[in-house]
Amino acid sequence: MTDVKELAIEQARKHGGKMEIVSKVAIDTMEDLAIAYTPGVGAVCMEIAEDKEKAYEYTTKKNMVAVVTDGSAVLGLGNIGPEAAIPVMEGKATLFKRFADVDAIPISLNTQDTEEIIQAVAAIAPSFAGINLEDIGAPRCFEIETRLKEMLDIPVFHDDQHGTAIVVLAALLNGLRLTDKKIEDIKIVIMGAGAAGLAIARLFLSAGAKNVQVLDRTGIICADNPDLPDHHKAIAEITNPNRDTGTAADALVGADVFVGVSGPGALKPEWVSTMAEKSMVFAMANPTPEIMPDEAKAAGAYIIGTGRSDFPNQINNVLCFPGIFRGAIDARANDITVEMQIAAAEGIAAMVSDEELNPERILPDVFKPGVSETVANSVKNAVK
Amino acid sequence: MTDVKELAIEQARKHGGKMEIVSKVAIDTMEDLAIAYTPGVGAVCMEIAEDKEKAYEYTTKKNMVAVVTDGSAVLGLGNIGPEAAIPVMEGKATLFKRFADVDAIPISLNTQDTEEIIQAVAAIAPSFAGINLEDIGAPRCFEIETRLKEMLDIPVFHDDQHGTAIVVLAALLNGLRLTDKKIEDIKIVIMGAGAAGLAIARLFLSAGAKNVQVLDRTGIICADNPDLPDHHKAIAEITNPNRDTGTAADALVGADVFVGVSGPGALKPEWVSTMAEKSMVFAMANPTPEIMPDEAKAAGAYIIGTGRSDFPNQINNVLCFPGIFRGAIDARANDITVEMQIAAAEGIAAMVSDEELNPERILPDVFKPGVSETVANSVKNAVK
Repeated sequence: MTDVKELAIEQARKHGGKMEIVSKVAIDTMEDLAIAYTPGVGAVCMEIAEDKEKAYEYTTKKNMVAVVTDGSAVLGLGNIGPEAAIPVMEGKATLFKRFADVDAIPISLNTQDTEEIIQAVAAIAPSFAGINLEDIGAPRCFEIETRLKEMLDIPVFHDDQHGTAIVVLAALLNGLRLTDKKIEDIKIVIMGAGAAGLAIARLFLSAGAKNVQVLDRTGIICADNPDLPDHHKAIAEITNPNRDTGTAADALVGADVFVGVSGPGALKPEWVSTMAEKSMVFAMANPTPEIMPDEAKAAGAYIIGTGRSDFPNQINNVLCFPGIFRGAIDARANDITVEMQIAAAEGIAAMVSDEELNPERILPDVFKPGVSETVANSVKNAVK
Repeated sequence: MTDVKELAIEQARKHGGKMEIVSKVAIDTMEDLAIAYTPGVGAVCMEIAEDKEKAYEYTTKKNMVAVVTDGSAVLGLGNIGPEAAIPVMEGKATLFKRFADVDAIPISLNTQDTEEIIQAVAAIAPSFAGINLEDIGAPRCFEIETRLKEMLDIPVFHDDQHGTAIVVLAALLNGLRLTDKKIEDIKIVIMGAGAAGLAIARLFLSAGAKNVQVLDRTGIICADNPDLPDHHKAIAEITNPNRDTGTAADALVGADVFVGVSGPGALKPEWVSTMAEKSMVFAMANPTPEIMPDEAKAAGAYIIGTGRSDFPNQINNVLCFPGIFRGAIDARANDITVEMQIAAAEGIAAMVSDEELNPERILPDVFKPGVSETVANSVKNAVK
């Protein structure tokens, strides 16, 4: 790990930014200038002034995504501010380009005020085909995303929530394929009630799950608890249909699926032993998962996924965000709907063939050719 | 002209945006991913969190300029809105790259409210090394620029004001060189009291001019007039030292220099005949100047410049903005000061050698090698 970090610093020092702007047009003569800039460009402007939609045909808006952060919840590093967040945003931008030919640029905001973030993103929106929100802390990320989705006519997507949820759903779909279980029959326990945990719960329910329990540090979130914070009240109403209370140990008894978006070592092997037959454990805390794969396996888990690339079944957002934006942009979608998100998960899942599918191969390799194209096509087909 | 417009539309159709983002780093293996993105990138983030200044060493902020508009005063097209303004902004961005290797991106704002523009630009500033304001109408462009310069620690530059003023000053400096006149002795008449006209007047005064008269549609702006609008009061106090009143015809009698930033045909040949010996006429209305060069020459003008590339002495902002940003960014300047602006003009002027200098060659060709480097160096040397 130290090695990778040293190499990352070396790379930053060498390049001073991982991306650059490149002109597609040569400007070597006065005529070139007159075409790319004034007076020629005026004709392009006037066509767009008459029909705003032509900005998608004629300008960089066509393919440009803003990767927006306020620097408040960057990776596992916390609230490190907008400048320090730029390397993550530009890393993400390089992945957008590499995996789906989306042009993306870092927009690191000098404010952590919900209203100011919303106003700033709404203000810059005309230049972009989509907005990828990134590493913005909960609970303000919820209001920011909801409000921007209402205000803007371009897709707004908070990858930490929905990108994660989509890839976990893809893992679950292939886990079900492998175990012959049905989503509506299984019990799912989600440990961690932050932005990612809540998004996973909602997407699983939208995909047909009936029995989902979400746990925070105090245990199973239950609608009978009068002291729940607001954003937990909403999730309590749609999860935990039997109004169970109790600890994580209680929740895991008979559970088919564990999803961890909490912290290192939060899942005890003895709890895994109480799970249902052919259980799935998706332990995504980074860099140290809720349980190490060998421990989970020894305790009886059938399918194990983590956020790490050095174990099988890496649950990596790179499988999702380039393709979902590619599809949404190409379809000129105004939004990335739940239907499009489920379609993206199905697209990812479909990238593992019946022959390939096994407990250590429920997700495609991030470099497998065709992943983002498949996701993009699935998403396009799900646009109404 | 029609031809150039058709070619511009064709170019827009073909490319759908004149620029794209290109990654400087290969991402072909899991190790590449771990270096460019998580977990490696975290080490880069943490170094910047400890020392914000390192964003200039390690990230795209180092070389990234936002070309910001509200779409309210685009070229001569007027208030055509943010989407229709994008082609101009991206044209400008390609010129930034072509002439000074500055990475620039269009930021077209969905608001024309002064406060909202200021807040939006201030919010996105951490991602950028500089802000180029573009095609924002007067008078709100003045407050937006002034306030942002105070608020931000990166250079903020309104090219329509200062870029134009710098290139006209360069033309004037070489005109003086050619005519053996001194800036402090000459009478200068500026027709047009909008953003560009006022900026030219101020820069000329800063460069040593003593006798500048600015005209609006009603005639010479004079401090004795109690009905002046606010932004004209300020200019009246520092120009027109003799408190002259009168028409353009009156102002031009004995004038050494005419600067037109008004409209087509606004300068009558008979007025040019009343100017001083070896007079200079910079008629910059676009596409039709205040007076056509042949008419001005016939009426006795010694040096004639326009905004057009099909006549000698094109006063083109491309001579200035790439180099001035290159210099300011490389010097890590917090601002583009008047001293830096004058240095930029001197740098442009110095690109015409004594041998080259003649009434039809007072400015370098925009493609002359070394212009932006020379401007950048002059600007760097002027940073305190």
